[in-house]
Amino acid sequence: MFIHQTLARAVRLFGTRQAVVCGEMRLTYRELEQRIARFTAALVAAGVQPGDRIATLMLNCHRYLECYFAAERAGAVLQPLNHRLAPAEVAYALNDARAVLLVAGPELWPVVEVCRAQLTTVRQVIVATDTGEDSYEARLARSTPVDAPVRTWAEEDLVHLYYTSGTTGRAKGVMLSQRNVMSNAHHALFAHRFTEQDVWLHAAPMFHLADAWACWAVTWIGGRHVFLREFQPSAFLSLVEREQVSVTLVVPTMINAIVNLPEADTFDVSSLRLITFGASPMPVDRLTAAMQALPCQFSQLYGMTETSPFATQLLAEDIMTATGVAPAERLASCGREIPGVEVRVQDAHGQDVRPGVAGEIVMRGPNVMLGYWERPDETAHALRNGWMHSGDLATVDASGYITIVDRAKDMIITGGENVYSTEVEDALYRHAAVLEAAVIGVPDDLWGERVHAVIVLRPGARTTAEDLADSCRRFIAGFKIPRSVEFVESLPKTGSGKIQKSELRARHWRGRGRRVN
Amino acid sequence: MFIHQTLARAVRLFGTRQAVVCGEMRLTYRELEQRIARFTAALVAAGVQPGDRIATLMLNCHRYLECYFAAERAGAVLQPLNHRLAPAEVAYALNDARAVLLVAGPELWPVVEVCRAQLTTVRQVIVATDTGEDSYEARLARSTPVDAPVRTWAEEDLVHLYYTSGTTGRAKGVMLSQRNVMSNAHHALFAHRFTEQDVWLHAAPMFHLADAWACWAVTWIGGRHVFLREFQPSAFLSLVEREQVSVTLVVPTMINAIVNLPEADTFDVSSLRLITFGASPMPVDRLTAAMQALPCQFSQLYGMTETSPFATQLLAEDIMTATGVAPAERLASCGREIPGVEVRVQDAHGQDVRPGVAGEIVMRGPNVMLGYWERPDETAHALRNGWMHSGDLATVDASGYITIVDRAKDMIITGGENVYSTEVEDALYRHAAVLEAAVIGVPDDLWGERVHAVIVLRPGARTTAEDLADSCRRFIAGFKIPRSVEFVESLPKTGSGKIQKSELRARHWRGRGRRVN
Repeated sequence: MFIHQTLARAVRLFGTRQAVVCGEMRLTYRELEQRIARFTAALVAAGVQPGDRIATLMLNCHRYLECYFAAERAGAVLQPLNHRLAPAEVAYALNDARAVLLVAGPELWPVVEVCRAQLTTVRQVIVATDTGEDSYEARLARSTPVDAPVRTWAEEDLVHLYYTSGTTGRAKGVMLSQRNVMSNAHHALFAHRFTEQDVWLHAAPMFHLADAWACWAVTWIGGRHVFLREFQPSAFLSLVEREQVSVTLVVPTMINAIVNLPEADTFDVSSLRLITFGASPMPVDRLTAAMQALPCQFSQLYGMTETSPFATQLLAEDIMTATGVAPAERLASCGREIPGVEVRVQDAHGQDVRPGVAGEIVMRGPNVMLGYWERPDETAHALRNGWMHSGDLATVDASGYITIVDRAKDMIITGGENVYSTEVEDALYRHAAVLEAAVIGVPDDLWGERVHAVIVLRPGARTTAEDLADSCRRFIAGFKIPRSVEFVESLPKTGSGKIQKSELRARHWRGRGRRVN
Repeated sequence: MFIHQTLARAVRLFGTRQAVVCGEMRLTYRELEQRIARFTAALVAAGVQPGDRIATLMLNCHRYLECYFAAERAGAVLQPLNHRLAPAEVAYALNDARAVLLVAGPELWPVVEVCRAQLTTVRQVIVATDTGEDSYEARLARSTPVDAPVRTWAEEDLVHLYYTSGTTGRAKGVMLSQRNVMSNAHHALFAHRFTEQDVWLHAAPMFHLADAWACWAVTWIGGRHVFLREFQPSAFLSLVEREQVSVTLVVPTMINAIVNLPEADTFDVSSLRLITFGASPMPVDRLTAAMQALPCQFSQLYGMTETSPFATQLLAEDIMTATGVAPAERLASCGREIPGVEVRVQDAHGQDVRPGVAGEIVMRGPNVMLGYWERPDETAHALRNGWMHSGDLATVDASGYITIVDRAKDMIITGGENVYSTEVEDALYRHAAVLEAAVIGVPDDLWGERVHAVIVLRPGARTTAEDLADSCRRFIAGFKIPRSVEFVESLPKTGSGKIQKSELRARHWRGRGRRVN
């Protein structure tokens, strides 16, 4: 199965049904398809060839959905970029992927302006507005629809390239094939029990697979897409009420904001049947509060971009049916493997661990990525013996429920975004006063985890947390900048001189059952 | 994904849960797996090699489920045989597939006795009982468990070989791959909205894919298997009540019998959440009666062995949400394509027909068979331009609902069984008195369609319907024997001398909206 088949089905079976609600704009599936057919033509007219990478840098909107489908119809590989990246990071990702074209939202234009001179392969930037001679809408209006994919896709062909933070401090492209994303769509239809009556709210950012998978899965079943440009709790609740949203995915930070909004109970959210959440673990007390505040099903998902993304699921019914396990313990779990994905917790020798013993989560299935773009070593390291190695440490109980306890990779998840400590440390080291820097995640009520820096200054040097943050801002995205800084005399080290981050973290995580949040 | 992964998942996540209820026997998933591991060893000990065909001839029971899994673990191809076939037909299928081993239920032993001398490749017959030195249970008991598949399966490998009636009068083997059956399992999990709480009743015969798919799909989700040895309406209702069955598949003939059972309302069937039905079209008045009698969801499925089997689905909610269509018209439809299968209605030139115009149902997707066993011509004819040609004529409305109106292939569906008229005609022609024979399906209140023969006798010859039936019984299964016979002077013919069956059928189907039942 291919992405374009999901749209073809929706047009054939649900052509006159409302497909898209974006602000005041409403489109039927037939109208949506016609816009996609025209934007495909615009891409072809811009010189896009099958296999070319074309990138998007946009906030959520119907054009993002259109780009996912038009890029595929044009035979291209879509590279969705995190809109919070610093200009230097955007330029790096575009050059690394050798992207030929960029579609940028008007809000992101300042980023494009700054990085444009550094782009080595991008030939055109299309601004996603309806004004201007060369805008998205102008190009679309003057194009003749392209009604079918311009290439014959094979299931193993690369179709999406998602850049994620790299352990080496440089982002790397996760290569997903048609089969990868379509197998996840199958998993999603089942796991979320979608029906054609469903209305999906694109609330999490669409550059991330946490939401992007819904572009083709919700289309496949003929559901409706509603777009929330940027997350804001009252806007979220207002859209749920106005458009009778039935299902969405939120990251824990978002659900906190919703539950804590003073006027939350003035909105009618009775249309919600299911809230799914993922991207970072959900603190149990927050989940309990959310379940009390919102009268619908809750489903926790675990996965990663490399697994397209879903691998495990915890349903509210898993908690109800728990026997011999305290509900809170079960709530702390990310659930069990979804049918179609094999998930194991293994020790360093590739053996399944016994219940209660921590090991690394590994995953196998048709949803596992092709590899990292032009990174054979990192691909070989991640995909060992046919299994995707997550870097997440977990325990598994006798019923197969998996609970993440720590992260093997040196990664922080803050507000649903992955931050590798090494890239933050690299930025810190560019400051003249820094002798040694260690970046760790510490528990934070608002963000789940907070980027925290432990710094040893050069002899005689002086600086402040604010000064370090300002220095970092030139190199890395705002969400990666340390929100707290601690100055110390020296860092704990191993015999071989490696900084012992586990010791640094231990002080902050004392008294907690797991070392992720 | 592979069949063995469904069992592995169930054992890992639901090991201590009740997996099987067969008569008074109950097995957990762990116990079931151990029996399968031992029977796999018994197959290997019997000399079964990877790729060998091993056949089953049994009524529904837990051993049938075990055979599906043990055959796959042994690396073999399972050939499930219709237990109603005549001995000559059983021998033909076994020899055609060059099967090396047969597992036969004690009730089918008389058939084995009759055909054994004709078997050219079968080296061993295992009787599926718990007594006798060489029985299923004796072999199982003395074997050392084989814990993993003895071969590395590839997704495209042949795993099941289902014999279906052939247009040429000879049965042909439908070759299904691991990917075929596992893609259908994905479709089934979604279409039936399975949960691990589900209890499946194997009510339709397990030699047929109408029920067999549930062996791996229900196992995958960790549901429970309950077995009904042979269909009988009060036994069906009694098992539903006793075992709290939640979902099953029945053919229309079965549901008629259930609804018409005088004591039907004395059983508590409140555990049923979904009744699926398929294998032959359901008359609208029967469906309405069933929906009134049984307080659960109904789902009509259309497909064929060649499509593993599901392709379309009609849900009760499709009827509720129908606009501009009379409920009865929608009820006559077999629904719309399931996500994952492409279904079209095409004219003779391979073009999609307009709404309301009849064409042939064609299907494409990962569920479409590899081909017919050693029948390259029939394979090429069925799989044209990548589409499986069903031989069913249908119309499609503007919302994609498909309604079967006639059959392009000369086939009769009686009580859920496919009968090709040519094989019945072949049997009739063996009677000395028969000059010409034409077999058609005519509407029948009990069987949906009835096998009806129109006969021209040789000059001066005489015979009766009973005599013809007795003669046929030596060559074909009981369900294929004409239930009514009409003697005529001559048959209507085309200019080229071909019998015009359409004219013969017209008289019987007058005043009906569709020519299938």
